[in-house]
Amino acid sequence: MNHGLPAVAVEIYTKIMTAETTGTPDFSHGDGLLPAIAQDAASGQVLMLGYMNREAWQQTLATGQAVYFSRSRKKLWHKGEESGNFQVVKAIYVDCDADTILLKVEQIGGAACHEGFPSCFFRKWSGSEFLIEGERVFDPQQVYKNP
Amino acid sequence: MNHGLPAVAVEIYTKIMTAETTGTPDFSHGDGLLPAIAQDAASGQVLMLGYMNREAWQQTLATGQAVYFSRSRKKLWHKGEESGNFQVVKAIYVDCDADTILLKVEQIGGAACHEGFPSCFFRKWSGSEFLIEGERVFDPQQVYKNP
Repeated sequence: MNHGLPAVAVEIYTKIMTAETTGTPDFSHGDGLLPAIAQDAASGQVLMLGYMNREAWQQTLATGQAVYFSRSRKKLWHKGEESGNFQVVKAIYVDCDADTILLKVEQIGGAACHEGFPSCFFRKWSGSEFLIEGERVFDPQQVYKNP
Repeated sequence: MNHGLPAVAVEIYTKIMTAETTGTPDFSHGDGLLPAIAQDAASGQVLMLGYMNREAWQQTLATGQAVYFSRSRKKLWHKGEESGNFQVVKAIYVDCDADTILLKVEQIGGAACHEGFPSCFFRKWSGSEFLIEGERVFDPQQVYKNP
């Protein structure tokens, strides 16, 4: 395909759009840890943002459920392993740089956030501060026995 | 509010939920650079993920349009400054850790991606590779004169 671009630009473009980015996200970025957005497949609500390394990505594909890498605990985190609120993966997208992942999921239990809200984004900017919007679906104390 | 938690837990919880996180995102995380998701306010489509430092955050509030920090160019990036495809901010959310920002925006020009697609997430996992989904809204060569 000739875009009227210099040959080197076409070569770089082709490389980006094919071999390097179609097979897997580009884990050479972000020290191997890429942001992964979870969006409710039915409602479109953005639920949370986690991080994936290559192993988390492979586990997500293998299990069909979202597996992240916990930056605080420094280990794989199969979302829902404690609460039962797993995320069943319905579709996976990658962005133009292949360094951000978007999961469309079915959120088991109706809540992604450990605070008990459907979405982790439960605080909205009022113009001067963030105020809680929405209602809790569960009581964190009843779900997490060892906080 | 008494949750039946030890006093220290209530204190930590209160601190997290009020003073430390309601006034601003927590730029002590991520070396001062927080991921910011842009979502179409009308359709719910996730458009892109950028990064904000404190200055980008302040500029976003001041202008009412998305201003990111470009990690590759290492400077503030007023989205649309070259293409004209600005993002008018309709609402801003922050997640439970206050270290991820969610912008609901009106995407001027109908396309967020420099590749000409409405969303940067235009490639979908097929089971073995990422395949392009959707159509270009503009031709990048006509919009970016100095690629």
